[in-house]
Amino acid sequence: MSKITIAIDTLGGDNGAEPMIIGIKDALNIHNDVNVIVTGKEEELNPLVDRYNVPKDRIQIIHANEVITCHDAPVDAIRRKKDSSLVLALNLVKECKADAVISAGNSGAILAGGQFIVGRAKGVKRTPLAPLLPHSKGSSLLIDCGANVDAKPENLVQFAKMGSIYMENIVGVKNPTVGIINIGVEDEKGNALVKETIPMLRECKDINFIGSVESREIPNGVADVLVCEAFTGNVMLKFYEGVGSMFKNEIKGTLMTNIKTKIGALLIKKELNANLQRFSANDKGGAPLLGLKGLVVKIHGNSKDTEVSSAITQCRNFVINDVSGKIVDAFEGVKEDVQ
Amino acid sequence: MSKITIAIDTLGGDNGAEPMIIGIKDALNIHNDVNVIVTGKEEELNPLVDRYNVPKDRIQIIHANEVITCHDAPVDAIRRKKDSSLVLALNLVKECKADAVISAGNSGAILAGGQFIVGRAKGVKRTPLAPLLPHSKGSSLLIDCGANVDAKPENLVQFAKMGSIYMENIVGVKNPTVGIINIGVEDEKGNALVKETIPMLRECKDINFIGSVESREIPNGVADVLVCEAFTGNVMLKFYEGVGSMFKNEIKGTLMTNIKTKIGALLIKKELNANLQRFSANDKGGAPLLGLKGLVVKIHGNSKDTEVSSAITQCRNFVINDVSGKIVDAFEGVKEDVQ
Repeated sequence: MSKITIAIDTLGGDNGAEPMIIGIKDALNIHNDVNVIVTGKEEELNPLVDRYNVPKDRIQIIHANEVITCHDAPVDAIRRKKDSSLVLALNLVKECKADAVISAGNSGAILAGGQFIVGRAKGVKRTPLAPLLPHSKGSSLLIDCGANVDAKPENLVQFAKMGSIYMENIVGVKNPTVGIINIGVEDEKGNALVKETIPMLRECKDINFIGSVESREIPNGVADVLVCEAFTGNVMLKFYEGVGSMFKNEIKGTLMTNIKTKIGALLIKKELNANLQRFSANDKGGAPLLGLKGLVVKIHGNSKDTEVSSAITQCRNFVINDVSGKIVDAFEGVKEDVQ
Repeated sequence: MSKITIAIDTLGGDNGAEPMIIGIKDALNIHNDVNVIVTGKEEELNPLVDRYNVPKDRIQIIHANEVITCHDAPVDAIRRKKDSSLVLALNLVKECKADAVISAGNSGAILAGGQFIVGRAKGVKRTPLAPLLPHSKGSSLLIDCGANVDAKPENLVQFAKMGSIYMENIVGVKNPTVGIINIGVEDEKGNALVKETIPMLRECKDINFIGSVESREIPNGVADVLVCEAFTGNVMLKFYEGVGSMFKNEIKGTLMTNIKTKIGALLIKKELNANLQRFSANDKGGAPLLGLKGLVVKIHGNSKDTEVSSAITQCRNFVINDVSGKIVDAFEGVKEDVQ
């Protein structure tokens, strides 16, 4: 059995390398066919590998002299910081020494590095960032949430196809429904981009397009793939995180109001936490940057070991199911141009 | 003391005329200087006015033979259904027989009717729909959430000014902060529209512009006025409603899990409801359509009497503080053109 190699940037996250190493250890325990290469500070990584008994024949450490921080300008950092943990990890995919990269670092730098170092797959015009958004019945793929805004209709059509391939192969949804995020469900609603894209999506034979969807219905699981331009997607994703966090804090605050509510809190704590956990990012395995020559996965800056571990699982499924190959097949014959 | 007259469309809402009449009665009890004109079905309204003892010298009923439903195409309905409750109410403002209109009907028709019947105020290029979005510390004005998309930078600058005037005069926030919704806080971030608008907002002397704000921070009350293009605002507003509703339902579901959580629910019920009530639309008084020659307020389709009553209070404050006049003053010298 040939091994799958996943490169992991251990710098740039908020919690340091420790949760990364714990997550790696857990993932290696589950998946015999996975090896990892970690980029970061040798002096920090070696003791952690020892402490958590990560099998040394399955982890390789590459020392990085630099780190790209959240304050660095993305494109400039990718070009200038050649010896950073992120650039070293991305180069491993470029040089076919790894199949995928996972990073908790600067989002813009991950997106820029994915494009400039790993490169777009044949036929792909734009490489969208596509996180899974938890809703009451499961999750939908919100595509695109990246930093590459002002997309064209043909880009959104590609997002719909890539998103469908992802949901079918990674999440296991048969014939996933695709909706375009709009300000009403009628075809005459929307901005110029959406109005121009809708008839193009209707003509796609290889996706299950259900038309416009309103954002109010997203938490009810209105579609498996939610297509939108990156500005809208990015704003929605961050708003979802912010509103979710606000409601959780408000509820926690309410439970601490007085002695009566504190007793009530003890009685509901277990069930409440279990339910709210469903809306946590930790088990979603990060957001993939789709349409590259290899897979790049962005995990949260404050990722815990569980998110690292599930991101490794996601990368493995991505490789095993040859999602990149299926995306290239879907866009066969698309004329190449400069993005 | 001269009376303020508010026209209320009693058709088009989901709950019929009854909550409207109860809300009117409550508002008339509070405000001696307000009279109302209701448009709708005489045969339905007369018995309700009697049942709730609404003072007959302060309420006038105008019979409407038609209703604009949520299935009607907005612009077409406004032009064709001349005898609908909404068109009759809007005409009262146009003819200076009323100062403001409140409607729970078809949003698109309210927006279209506001523009075509009431008309834009002098100097105003676009008339934004601007609801208050509840957050953990109060509320922010999200401007624009309407159906008139693909705005230009100069429109967003006017939204910032109108929003500031509204927050200062109606909500009572001194020198309200203005943020533009963006995908990052740095000036180089954003789509073409946002990048072009930021320097124009920085040059405005009459607003307190704080730069780009990320949607993740909106629930923390990052700015009093949140400027955005209508497509983004409309999607965010509906997403906020959907996500809020999902979390409330999830919590309710959790509390019903078993006998233990049901007891817990009894202990926290009062405090939890009181807290979640803060995020309800009922006491926000609806969303104003700003920049018209009179005020048009859109309330929720499923509005209860409390939302009707607070919408009337909002209209009264709007007139007393001459918000329309202040908006016209702010845009003095702006060249008129076709929207």
